[in-house]
Amino acid sequence: MTLRAALGSLRAMPNAPSTAATTEVLTIGDELLRGELVDSNSAWLAGRLGELGLPASRFSTASDELGDIVEQLRSAAGRCSALMVSGGLGPTEDDRTAQAVAQAAGVELELHEAQLEAIKARFAAVSLPFTDNNAKQAWLPHGALVLDNDIGTAPGFSVKIGGCRVFCMPGVPRELMRMFDRHVASVLESELGGQRPELRRVKVFGLAEAQVDHMLRGLGDGIDGRGCTVTIHYRATFPEIHASVVVRGGEGGAAGEVADAYAEAMAERLAGNVFARDAATSFADALVATLREHGATVAFAESCTGGRTGDLITNAAGSSDVFLGSLVTYSNSAKEQLLGVPSEVLQRDGAVSQRCVEAMARGARERFGSDYAVAISGVAGPGGGSAEKPVGTVHFALAGPDGLMRHVHRVFRYGERDRVKQVSAYVAAWLVYRALTAPGADDVIGKRWAPRGTR
Amino acid sequence: MTLRAALGSLRAMPNAPSTAATTEVLTIGDELLRGELVDSNSAWLAGRLGELGLPASRFSTASDELGDIVEQLRSAAGRCSALMVSGGLGPTEDDRTAQAVAQAAGVELELHEAQLEAIKARFAAVSLPFTDNNAKQAWLPHGALVLDNDIGTAPGFSVKIGGCRVFCMPGVPRELMRMFDRHVASVLESELGGQRPELRRVKVFGLAEAQVDHMLRGLGDGIDGRGCTVTIHYRATFPEIHASVVVRGGEGGAAGEVADAYAEAMAERLAGNVFARDAATSFADALVATLREHGATVAFAESCTGGRTGDLITNAAGSSDVFLGSLVTYSNSAKEQLLGVPSEVLQRDGAVSQRCVEAMARGARERFGSDYAVAISGVAGPGGGSAEKPVGTVHFALAGPDGLMRHVHRVFRYGERDRVKQVSAYVAAWLVYRALTAPGADDVIGKRWAPRGTR
Repeated sequence: MTLRAALGSLRAMPNAPSTAATTEVLTIGDELLRGELVDSNSAWLAGRLGELGLPASRFSTASDELGDIVEQLRSAAGRCSALMVSGGLGPTEDDRTAQAVAQAAGVELELHEAQLEAIKARFAAVSLPFTDNNAKQAWLPHGALVLDNDIGTAPGFSVKIGGCRVFCMPGVPRELMRMFDRHVASVLESELGGQRPELRRVKVFGLAEAQVDHMLRGLGDGIDGRGCTVTIHYRATFPEIHASVVVRGGEGGAAGEVADAYAEAMAERLAGNVFARDAATSFADALVATLREHGATVAFAESCTGGRTGDLITNAAGSSDVFLGSLVTYSNSAKEQLLGVPSEVLQRDGAVSQRCVEAMARGARERFGSDYAVAISGVAGPGGGSAEKPVGTVHFALAGPDGLMRHVHRVFRYGERDRVKQVSAYVAAWLVYRALTAPGADDVIGKRWAPRGTR
Repeated sequence: MTLRAALGSLRAMPNAPSTAATTEVLTIGDELLRGELVDSNSAWLAGRLGELGLPASRFSTASDELGDIVEQLRSAAGRCSALMVSGGLGPTEDDRTAQAVAQAAGVELELHEAQLEAIKARFAAVSLPFTDNNAKQAWLPHGALVLDNDIGTAPGFSVKIGGCRVFCMPGVPRELMRMFDRHVASVLESELGGQRPELRRVKVFGLAEAQVDHMLRGLGDGIDGRGCTVTIHYRATFPEIHASVVVRGGEGGAAGEVADAYAEAMAERLAGNVFARDAATSFADALVATLREHGATVAFAESCTGGRTGDLITNAAGSSDVFLGSLVTYSNSAKEQLLGVPSEVLQRDGAVSQRCVEAMARGARERFGSDYAVAISGVAGPGGGSAEKPVGTVHFALAGPDGLMRHVHRVFRYGERDRVKQVSAYVAAWLVYRALTAPGADDVIGKRWAPRGTR
């Protein structure tokens, strides 16, 4: 029996509103209930479910106690058509999802020989010792359909509890995401019938969600909806905002064309802040692709970001084509000796100053022999602030083929250390990106995190 | 009637197990269910509730629909003694928490004149226009106790639904945190009495969760539990594993002493991999503190990590005392010119080789003038691999006051680009950490992610 066939009961009538099928998310783990871990899986799953036209109507979190999991599985299964379960599939004693699902479904656990072999093979391949508790992961509820996990040891599985199709996935976000996208989504999509929603996405940097929402008010005015249902969604992944338009219904190819029209209007309104128009392209990908198109190379000179700007761009595969390196000079002597910042600049203006970042940018460009170089120096906090240069003060300079091109000075308020580093790495990368994609544009970079009055 | 007096019913008997009182968290908002926002309030509240000895037993998330909120309020109130509610207190139409609470409690909404004046005064103070929908925030359930919000416009409130004390707080994290800490926590603490659980934590690097679990089997053998309930918990934050012991019950100071004994046994069994024994200390903190104790400085020479090692150590506040900088040399010419790697090494052995990382480490140590330097060069993937040097191949070298100290060669399998970077940054930092804390120890660093046969 294939997974798809087994899911027949979820199939909706062609063209029936997909909302006939309801979904919920149940996350499992004492570590969640103790607040040791922020649950990002529910939001991620809900975003994906929404895109599939199966919006989540409730999230719940259960402890590792068997009775609690069973009770919550039963009540959720009684309310919805498809339940996403995350966590509790590990090899340890407190991982009880399979057992709880079996109990809630009224079936026994049974050893899946094929899974046991797969797990053993996986351990052998990486020469890790296989222990008895790892074998536990091959015991699944009777009748379960296995959801393959090729990047972890815990297989996922799917069973029915009453009329509800339950998908159990690992709590590790990357394993869960991969499992959903590779095995769960296509099934939900094809089995829940009707029309796939058309989805378009626009990713922006430098705006808050409320600003994006404001800028997209009345987006549909002047667009013929052709009988389609159009919804706009946002997702904040600091410091990015992803806006998406989901279009369903309509006749013939209407949904796709309506989605295109909305995406076009969206991109136009947000123009100065857009870096990608699809789900797969990250900010680093966009920057690397742009540099490659222009046949240009870049280097960084970092202080308060500590290496995060280099880390950011090298998250894109193939970045070695355009990224030559980064000089992380955390001490003044390194700034002087490795980047050639004049000692009188450090003495008179200090390391967090326009003159310092300008000397750093020039120094990095020369030393790496890159076309562009961006320097970052600031006070990431929590210590090191002063009345004149409070925590969050960051200077940026961009040097290019024609010499110094920009200086930006910001005070990122109410951001703790990590946020100051993160937004600073983005602003640095954005300076190069915009210099190439919109030469001459004097955007108000990073203003969203800085108060009025600073420039 | 004071808020504390009103909460009398929650008071536990002195020395009664704190689990007599149970708590839950209910978050409200369509934006959560659409996945637009990751809920961090539940984890934060749960952490605080746990510290107060009132661990949360369930989280739930409801939509903005009145009926859904009422239903979830009623069922949660039927299960627990105190319910934390977050969100839905704003001025807009889809903020329906007060109305839902009134309905669930069977009381009417009534205008709180004092709150209305307070809201008007706040608007006047910041020169914002006061509109009718803002007045909505002054309508609270009959009998509600107001929880003051001095950094936002939405007041919180507390009412009883049946036997359950419900606290409604704003969804904005900083407003919620302040309201909980200033108004809710002290009440819960003094009124619910009882004994706080004792919590001890050990953080390790270089072991998988299943390995840690295996190594801690029978941990309590030989420890007198003195009537306490002891549970062991794990949390994986790649590539770290955090193991914690939670002890409740027992007489007198038993729980604290039992927790100490367990923590000691835990640390002993995991000795070679432990870097911290409390919740607050991160890996970067541990490394920085160790370097500071030894009066030593460090620098890095990075290739495939792209700056992540520098980023990692600079996540610790105060890292500037011991971290001089990192030379991210992504191109061969940068390795040659900025780190002095001989061109014949690059030609003959290649950039991913023992000779290259050794030259890089020596070069970084000289150029930064640091006591220690670690170099990292590898194939992060997905491209760039070969039969001889597959994706995941990484070389590390540590240079110190006495010259070259270590070379490590690993092939990190089944890790995509981000994981290879992440574990490589940790291995690099670990090399310095162990050289200082266990000189001479020749640990099998990073083996957990690499197969046998590589060294």
